[in-house]
Amino acid sequence: MLMLTASASSSLLAEDGYELWMRYRTVPVAKQVPVSQIVCPFADAATLKAAHSELKLGLEAMNDRTVPVVSKLTKQDAVLIGTPLTNEYIAGLNLDLRPFDDEAFVYAPATVNGKRVHVITGTEQQGVLYGAFWFLRQLQSGKPLPKSRYYSAPRYKLRLLNHWDNLNRSVERGYAGQSIWDWHKLPDYVDPRIIDYARANASIGINGAVLTNVNSNAMVLRADYIQKTKAIADTLRPYGIKVYLTGRFSAPIELGKLKTADPLDPEVQQWWKDKISEVYREIPDFGGFVVKANSEGQPGPQNYGRSHAEGANMIADALAPHGGILMWRAFVYDDKTPVDRAAQAYKEFQPLDGQFRSNVIVQVKNGPIDFQPREPFSPLFGALQKTPALMEVQVTKEYLGFATHLAYLGTMWQEALASPTRRRGQEKVLDTLTGIAGVSNIGSDRNWCGSHFDQANWYALGRLAWDPTLGAEKVADEWARLTFGTTVAKPVVSMMMRSREAVVDYTGPLGLTHLMATGHHYGPGPWVDNLGRADWNPVYFHRGDRDGIGFDRVAAGTLKQYAPGWQAVWGKPETTPENLLLWFHHVPWSYRLSSGKTVWEEMVARYTHGVSEVISMRAEWAKLGGKVDAGRFAQVTEFLKIQEKEAKWWRDASIAYWQSLNGLPLPKGFEPPEHSLEYYKSISHPYAPGNTHTG
Amino acid sequence: MLMLTASASSSLLAEDGYELWMRYRTVPVAKQVPVSQIVCPFADAATLKAAHSELKLGLEAMNDRTVPVVSKLTKQDAVLIGTPLTNEYIAGLNLDLRPFDDEAFVYAPATVNGKRVHVITGTEQQGVLYGAFWFLRQLQSGKPLPKSRYYSAPRYKLRLLNHWDNLNRSVERGYAGQSIWDWHKLPDYVDPRIIDYARANASIGINGAVLTNVNSNAMVLRADYIQKTKAIADTLRPYGIKVYLTGRFSAPIELGKLKTADPLDPEVQQWWKDKISEVYREIPDFGGFVVKANSEGQPGPQNYGRSHAEGANMIADALAPHGGILMWRAFVYDDKTPVDRAAQAYKEFQPLDGQFRSNVIVQVKNGPIDFQPREPFSPLFGALQKTPALMEVQVTKEYLGFATHLAYLGTMWQEALASPTRRRGQEKVLDTLTGIAGVSNIGSDRNWCGSHFDQANWYALGRLAWDPTLGAEKVADEWARLTFGTTVAKPVVSMMMRSREAVVDYTGPLGLTHLMATGHHYGPGPWVDNLGRADWNPVYFHRGDRDGIGFDRVAAGTLKQYAPGWQAVWGKPETTPENLLLWFHHVPWSYRLSSGKTVWEEMVARYTHGVSEVISMRAEWAKLGGKVDAGRFAQVTEFLKIQEKEAKWWRDASIAYWQSLNGLPLPKGFEPPEHSLEYYKSISHPYAPGNTHTG
Repeated sequence: MLMLTASASSSLLAEDGYELWMRYRTVPVAKQVPVSQIVCPFADAATLKAAHSELKLGLEAMNDRTVPVVSKLTKQDAVLIGTPLTNEYIAGLNLDLRPFDDEAFVYAPATVNGKRVHVITGTEQQGVLYGAFWFLRQLQSGKPLPKSRYYSAPRYKLRLLNHWDNLNRSVERGYAGQSIWDWHKLPDYVDPRIIDYARANASIGINGAVLTNVNSNAMVLRADYIQKTKAIADTLRPYGIKVYLTGRFSAPIELGKLKTADPLDPEVQQWWKDKISEVYREIPDFGGFVVKANSEGQPGPQNYGRSHAEGANMIADALAPHGGILMWRAFVYDDKTPVDRAAQAYKEFQPLDGQFRSNVIVQVKNGPIDFQPREPFSPLFGALQKTPALMEVQVTKEYLGFATHLAYLGTMWQEALASPTRRRGQEKVLDTLTGIAGVSNIGSDRNWCGSHFDQANWYALGRLAWDPTLGAEKVADEWARLTFGTTVAKPVVSMMMRSREAVVDYTGPLGLTHLMATGHHYGPGPWVDNLGRADWNPVYFHRGDRDGIGFDRVAAGTLKQYAPGWQAVWGKPETTPENLLLWFHHVPWSYRLSSGKTVWEEMVARYTHGVSEVISMRAEWAKLGGKVDAGRFAQVTEFLKIQEKEAKWWRDASIAYWQSLNGLPLPKGFEPPEHSLEYYKSISHPYAPGNTHTG
Repeated sequence: MLMLTASASSSLLAEDGYELWMRYRTVPVAKQVPVSQIVCPFADAATLKAAHSELKLGLEAMNDRTVPVVSKLTKQDAVLIGTPLTNEYIAGLNLDLRPFDDEAFVYAPATVNGKRVHVITGTEQQGVLYGAFWFLRQLQSGKPLPKSRYYSAPRYKLRLLNHWDNLNRSVERGYAGQSIWDWHKLPDYVDPRIIDYARANASIGINGAVLTNVNSNAMVLRADYIQKTKAIADTLRPYGIKVYLTGRFSAPIELGKLKTADPLDPEVQQWWKDKISEVYREIPDFGGFVVKANSEGQPGPQNYGRSHAEGANMIADALAPHGGILMWRAFVYDDKTPVDRAAQAYKEFQPLDGQFRSNVIVQVKNGPIDFQPREPFSPLFGALQKTPALMEVQVTKEYLGFATHLAYLGTMWQEALASPTRRRGQEKVLDTLTGIAGVSNIGSDRNWCGSHFDQANWYALGRLAWDPTLGAEKVADEWARLTFGTTVAKPVVSMMMRSREAVVDYTGPLGLTHLMATGHHYGPGPWVDNLGRADWNPVYFHRGDRDGIGFDRVAAGTLKQYAPGWQAVWGKPETTPENLLLWFHHVPWSYRLSSGKTVWEEMVARYTHGVSEVISMRAEWAKLGGKVDAGRFAQVTEFLKIQEKEAKWWRDASIAYWQSLNGLPLPKGFEPPEHSLEYYKSISHPYAPGNTHTG
């Protein structure tokens, strides 16, 4: 009954975004790839079952016909799935499955028993599942199937989501509703939505989920919570997704009632061994822990005069017999206000290189500070030579407009991944990694991510962790085709590709950073100077005064953390790319840029340009009315309107503040801020979402 | 495309409950009531538009054909809607719309211009909308349309939902996810879900929503929040739903920066007048306030030595010029531990009867304590003779198993509403009321209420506030037909009708009360004796010791708050109904009941019976497999399993505790508790939902 449904491809009835990019809509008959049956002899094997169920769902919907799952090949145009060991038709083909990778898949058109077939295979079931999703994606996005063997394997073994989800279901920096983990009802009730979460992740190659907040709670290791985690692990397992938890360093005290959490204390070591064995008894493929230690109030080894390496190794030793890994976050800073907060991670971790156990991975944010709209890459990438590094990016948009701003992050991550390290030959940052972890933007909101466009960032995380060389534009194009349809992909991609730079412009152009309001980080607060530590304040980061602006990181010594090649480039204002100018240098307001404009004139122009980019995105989107379903069209329309309003707020508040410092007039042709600086300072949003530190 | 949809009436594909009872499924052709067109000349009038849109949606779906909305009657079997002033065909019929009530509706079959028509009308548009929902309900539930004029009007003018929703979207005592009010995105973005919320309420006659928690926050009266409230009010208005807020008594201090909130201070009075005028400028039909004062830490007039009447009248005076009302909650208690907490509301408010302004309504919980599974009705009903009273019931199941226990509350509310007051002739509690307010169980969960069966409690609230004499079973039958379909209504109703008594039995039989764990109130805690005030502790309420159990409310003087007729009944254990025995009396464990069993034997039998009732409900539900869609069937199945486990937990923990007091052996034939009392005492659930006081 058409009226109440949204599934007919010919209609533009309201959609709510729940299906994500797994929108299997009927393909016009002329463009369908005919598929008659899915041949999967070991149909009950859990991961193969996930694969053939998905293929059945997608193929039936796209071709609007029944596609049975069978064990015998009886028809032309069948899809054969399985490993050679689970499907004798495939075994008979003797396909080349090299290079061996237990997550790789091979697609091959073939002829079996005189029948044309599509083969989707791999050395392990997991590869078959990835191949099934790839196959559906090709058909969905109207791309041709390869005419010969096609092989794909992930670049990294660790492709992870980090959920900053608390046990009370609040989500730190979450803008998409409550946590999808309903700890209270677990393990007795597992929301079927968790299966859709697993499908979505498997479809883009994500193979691990850290369930809990890095600002962690020891309670998650209590026996009843281990049962809850086990229920999630059991649900995710068929989709090749391992479960990880965050480890609170002081758990031996809080949960184990010990007097200390000193990593060199034998009782503490035994507590972790026992606890970790308990976890593995319930979850044999448990992935391991992420630990945030001695950072922002979290306990850690330094409380006992021990190094990060001593702390990490102690837990790693307990994990090792079970095959577990420990991801130790490099986002730390010590008790004293540093000369440069951006220098902390390198300062702390570079000297420890070589001291970590082999199952320790250092998890490093893409930039040296904290997920700002633009930062250079962290100097730790390439500098850690004996310790594996994981790049941590933030999928949730803490600093890029929460859920309502359109900001595609693929371009930002590509910028970091593709940066040369200038340490060794052609080495890029992406060559120094063993994996990518993204701070999740997923919640209970019907559309999962708080907005339709934010789904693209989840998608991009998975795709770039599979292949970091794909390029942001290609990923955006894939996503747009799957999510909004092939006919509107081009303008959608165009909006996406310019969106992050727009945010940079209206929040902090020319390498300015960390200018947001306190606590919730919603909106501008470049004037904030009253927080407990100097390096929590925006004024610490921008160093603006009557005469100039920017952080002199040459003088601070931070630049020396980078390779000499970068020191040469970033060492002088003239050779520093303008988009990082004020990151590395303090310059007078009158400093002239390549455009001939002064820094002040350029800043005003960029802030203004950021706003006009949003206006332009609104106009582009408006043209898609009637080409995108009514439900999603309306929400994006309204969110873009909010983005314009808030971009203007950022611009006006920032300009008003800079003028209060430099006393300079606005360059000609630019609108003055709508309100006074006092007005912008008076704005408060005590209940802006995501600020779970304060409740 | 059938595979991905759940709308075909013939299929049993998964549903998620979002549609509530407004599930318009195709009716078999033979049973369809033919409808050709909807005639509504003033189709743009907001409330008429809501009516014809709903009729179109429902009729097209049920009859699987297009039903246009037109201004001219051209076909047989048309539905004519409108008031006589907005529809001249209806005016021409000169229908009797008496007794006049601006929310009443009239349905009449008629012949107009030689054509058979259905007329849905009323003196105001709101009645027409109610009539449209009634009409759809008749068709949906397979009930015949009346053969002649049918008139219906609500018994009460105030039919309200009280949302205990906080500005950070947490919901006190909420078990269905976050608040549906997304304060952060308001007013710029109004979730389309709010329209579905409005439809659902209008369909059952609810005409007011108090948006915020009674433990209130002055911030909601700040100018930007008034804009947010206005956006909600604008969305609800076409559906006849007024918006109310909770008023924090100290708002003049917190928001107005005054030094006092003393109700007799002229500055305070002026602040409220100004603030309320500001609200009405934006929301001309704003309903008014609910105030919780001098209760559980909330500020109030007693902080300044003023009475509840002085406090209430001050705000009521500011509301009066605008037509607003003030609902002042009777749930109060003073600083000193009372002889009987159950006596507090009457003690405080009965003496104030006659001192309140005419726009003040005292809002009284159905029972004297706090929404317990069984309480006698509050003695204030019937005792307040000069002050209008509103009955406050709790739709959300704080004390009846959160979202996972099946407990239909219609029977509980009917018990209170139908109680004779024994003060004046045949007067029942329902005759003493001007309205009913229900503490909402609504949240962002896809199924709105946390469970499918909890939707029935929202439904029952509306229906019983429209007609408190309907009876719980009739309401359950209506709901079951609309929600699960006519074929399974009978067993569904049977489960519902026994469900609340099962909860009483496994949590607190024979009139026991307030035995739950601390804070979140999840699970048993009859042993709790360590809270800051005596009357917060379960031991205060059950008074169990080695020799006996129960609260002697005759000795405490509380019984005198009831009419002499009740004093006679409840004054002696022998004449007290056994289901309230331990509410009114302290008796020895050996006290014999009508069954011949001792109190102890009967308690064990009832606890056990409560558990077996849940086992029996599970068995009844299991038989509906294949008759209810897979999605809802599975969730109810799993929740009933949780309920059985938790019912057993309640039984076992309670019996273990009582045995620790009375040292008595278990009666023959009963299973001993599964674990030791120490085990039950050791259970902790720090993150159980709904506990926003501490969260």
